[in-house]
Amino acid sequence: MPYFDAASSAPLHPVARQALLASLDEGWADPSRLYREGRRARMLLDAAREAAAEAVGCRPDELVFTSSGTHAVHTGISGALAARRRVGRHLAVSAVEHSSVLHSAAAHEAAGGTTTQVAVDRAGRVDPAAFAAALREDTALACLQSANHEVGTEQPVAEIAQQCRAVGVPLLVDAAQSLGWGPVEGDWSLLAASAHKWGGPAGVGLLVVRKGVRFAAQGPADERESGRAAGFENLPAIVAAAASLRAVRAGVAGEAEKLRALVDRIRSAVPEVVPDVEVVGDPVRRLPHVVTFSCLYVDGEALLHELDRAGFSVSSGSSCTSSTLTPSHVLKAMGVLTEGNVRVSLPPGTAAADVDRFLEVLPGAVAGVRERLGAPVAASGPAGVESLVVDSLGKRCPIPVIELAKVIGDVPVGGTVTVLSDDEAARLDIPAWCGMRGQEYVGERPAERGVAYVVRRVS
Amino acid sequence: MPYFDAASSAPLHPVARQALLASLDEGWADPSRLYREGRRARMLLDAAREAAAEAVGCRPDELVFTSSGTHAVHTGISGALAARRRVGRHLAVSAVEHSSVLHSAAAHEAAGGTTTQVAVDRAGRVDPAAFAAALREDTALACLQSANHEVGTEQPVAEIAQQCRAVGVPLLVDAAQSLGWGPVEGDWSLLAASAHKWGGPAGVGLLVVRKGVRFAAQGPADERESGRAAGFENLPAIVAAAASLRAVRAGVAGEAEKLRALVDRIRSAVPEVVPDVEVVGDPVRRLPHVVTFSCLYVDGEALLHELDRAGFSVSSGSSCTSSTLTPSHVLKAMGVLTEGNVRVSLPPGTAAADVDRFLEVLPGAVAGVRERLGAPVAASGPAGVESLVVDSLGKRCPIPVIELAKVIGDVPVGGTVTVLSDDEAARLDIPAWCGMRGQEYVGERPAERGVAYVVRRVS
Repeated sequence: MPYFDAASSAPLHPVARQALLASLDEGWADPSRLYREGRRARMLLDAAREAAAEAVGCRPDELVFTSSGTHAVHTGISGALAARRRVGRHLAVSAVEHSSVLHSAAAHEAAGGTTTQVAVDRAGRVDPAAFAAALREDTALACLQSANHEVGTEQPVAEIAQQCRAVGVPLLVDAAQSLGWGPVEGDWSLLAASAHKWGGPAGVGLLVVRKGVRFAAQGPADERESGRAAGFENLPAIVAAAASLRAVRAGVAGEAEKLRALVDRIRSAVPEVVPDVEVVGDPVRRLPHVVTFSCLYVDGEALLHELDRAGFSVSSGSSCTSSTLTPSHVLKAMGVLTEGNVRVSLPPGTAAADVDRFLEVLPGAVAGVRERLGAPVAASGPAGVESLVVDSLGKRCPIPVIELAKVIGDVPVGGTVTVLSDDEAARLDIPAWCGMRGQEYVGERPAERGVAYVVRRVS
Repeated sequence: MPYFDAASSAPLHPVARQALLASLDEGWADPSRLYREGRRARMLLDAAREAAAEAVGCRPDELVFTSSGTHAVHTGISGALAARRRVGRHLAVSAVEHSSVLHSAAAHEAAGGTTTQVAVDRAGRVDPAAFAAALREDTALACLQSANHEVGTEQPVAEIAQQCRAVGVPLLVDAAQSLGWGPVEGDWSLLAASAHKWGGPAGVGLLVVRKGVRFAAQGPADERESGRAAGFENLPAIVAAAASLRAVRAGVAGEAEKLRALVDRIRSAVPEVVPDVEVVGDPVRRLPHVVTFSCLYVDGEALLHELDRAGFSVSSGSSCTSSTLTPSHVLKAMGVLTEGNVRVSLPPGTAAADVDRFLEVLPGAVAGVRERLGAPVAASGPAGVESLVVDSLGKRCPIPVIELAKVIGDVPVGGTVTVLSDDEAARLDIPAWCGMRGQEYVGERPAERGVAYVVRRVS
């Protein structure tokens, strides 16, 4: 049963399992105690810190273990912002950061700070010049991911780190998706990561604060982990996390090459076997194992269920798969189609045969969902009235786009279709459909209920 | 090699180990995902929550898993205080709470709130009337431990919970030390606990917020665990924590009886085999497995090393064993001797023979430390001058008390000894020595350097 959602969480690496088992016996005591069990725990903790620091490329005393990647990000951002409060309260982040970064930014704003979200291009990549332009006199901190968690696009971290250094702004890098694949290049100031993304156990993140970077941990004081991560150390998991990071790094070159080839196969095959599909993300500057595509006229949740029934576990950034019924902020920032979205992220050791079978199963799964939704199969007949209004109020993604596609052939070239919709995804997906279909997106205007999206038929 | 520091951290319970192993294979995926691995993880998480809620005596939807007991306390206090900010910003806590509670209180004060610390008696027990008196119009929250972590004294939680209800103040109970021994009685509002204290793994705490209790989680938003515990769920550890809680509870009656008898043996034997010792904490209303005593004229760290060399792992609240060189705030609040302090906390299954051997080893270990420090062996000869000054400046606990004891016999009854000391522990230990020795503690006054402590010989 192929699991293709490694970017969410990877199964435990065999080395992590082994290390965890060993340290359950050796590392359960309090490492701050003076007796033999405590000293043994302290030695294990010190060794894990050294191994992790070596993999990151930092000094052991710059690295602390947190209880998750999310905690590392929250602690890193709040501590760096607080330490530079005299400089100002401005925070610069990319628009495609992980929710832990964006939620930290929202909390910062709620407390009176300001945030600039730097836009990305259609591939999800930040433009260094745009990022540099967001750095101000009062910028206390900048945050940038090493690679995007939804589309795999790598960010120009080294270049942006240099720009930040030049103006004296510390850069925090969220390396959650990439640390298993290699150290983060460049002269960054802080770094956060999460062990269960590289095959380590849940319950372990890491936060690196370079020497010389000002940092003031927030929240109640606690003496553990240099005062930067409160609570009793989760030692067996920490040992396992460090051991598995070392192990995945040892095999990384060959593994990256294999997965990169499999992802390339998916990237080129999907548009061939599935009509009306958009493969998103940077095709070259990307993580080896992640590929994301969106299918017109498809309900993301229904497609996930179809694929699950066929034995494939994937995730989606479509609005229908989120608890808040809003599309992924990443796809939104990229301006790409959000409906029928599928993210495939391959775990190490993925068999080529499983990828082949996925490509066999996918066209039928997509076609089945489209058929049940009544999606258009081909362009409609000759033209009728000059303009049409489609009432999609109360209908959710992908229905508004399907109804648009069904009637576009009913107006002559030059005529317009106005779609009334109160679904947030329509704002993204109607322009995206126009781009994919070669039709003109005229714009939106408020309607009595919802929003009116106007499309002109040009072909 | 007997490990007698279960109150710090207990070795992993065999059931926890088994559950952890099984859920490493079954529970590594993201429980918020829709595919089979995610659904399986969700089922494990739900089952663990139900088991833990049953053991606590609450509804499953009142309980969330946090990444440690410390995080549960921090989150519980900050969320409860924020939700009742309109009522006021006063917090009432006992003076003997765990550092995670007192550090939360300090953070609350730094942010403009106020705290009242309710005193305890010489047994470490809070007087319900004194606690009730600390509740004010503007009290947003009260915190009380179920039992003390250093001396084992149980607090009158049910009675104080009732008082809190009567005036509409929510009570948060820190049940870290007691939850393995049974549910916390009474009508409390919030409860925090830590799995590694009951033989569960590190990395799991739990926070219960009763329905109807106002709560506003602080920090960046996160959708996991009802928005009350950010970060990817540490599922294998959560499953193991719940399984071991159920397992220890199943055997609790017999285990408590056995350990209680062993602790009683220590409580009665220590003053018989070691001269000049004070056994502290409530002898009856106490945890089954904890006993604490302090030895006059003894350096706590040296005694810990002696006991460690003899194969016994215990902890201490003496100033010399803390990184800040201050004595335990618990012993200080109780007003008992802090020098030569030893806490014995027996893990389940402790053999009576190991306790016997401890009682054999202890007198020699204490005597050895005393001898090396030059402690007085018996009362000195006849009186000399009316008053003496002992300069102990620059000397640490237990030296000032040893020097006092050496010369008290050199002044006649009615004469005084003035000890000059700049060691914080002297402020507690000189009055405590007077109490134990039947001498009169006259008081302290500032000196050119340090503090002058005046003792009158009365016997």
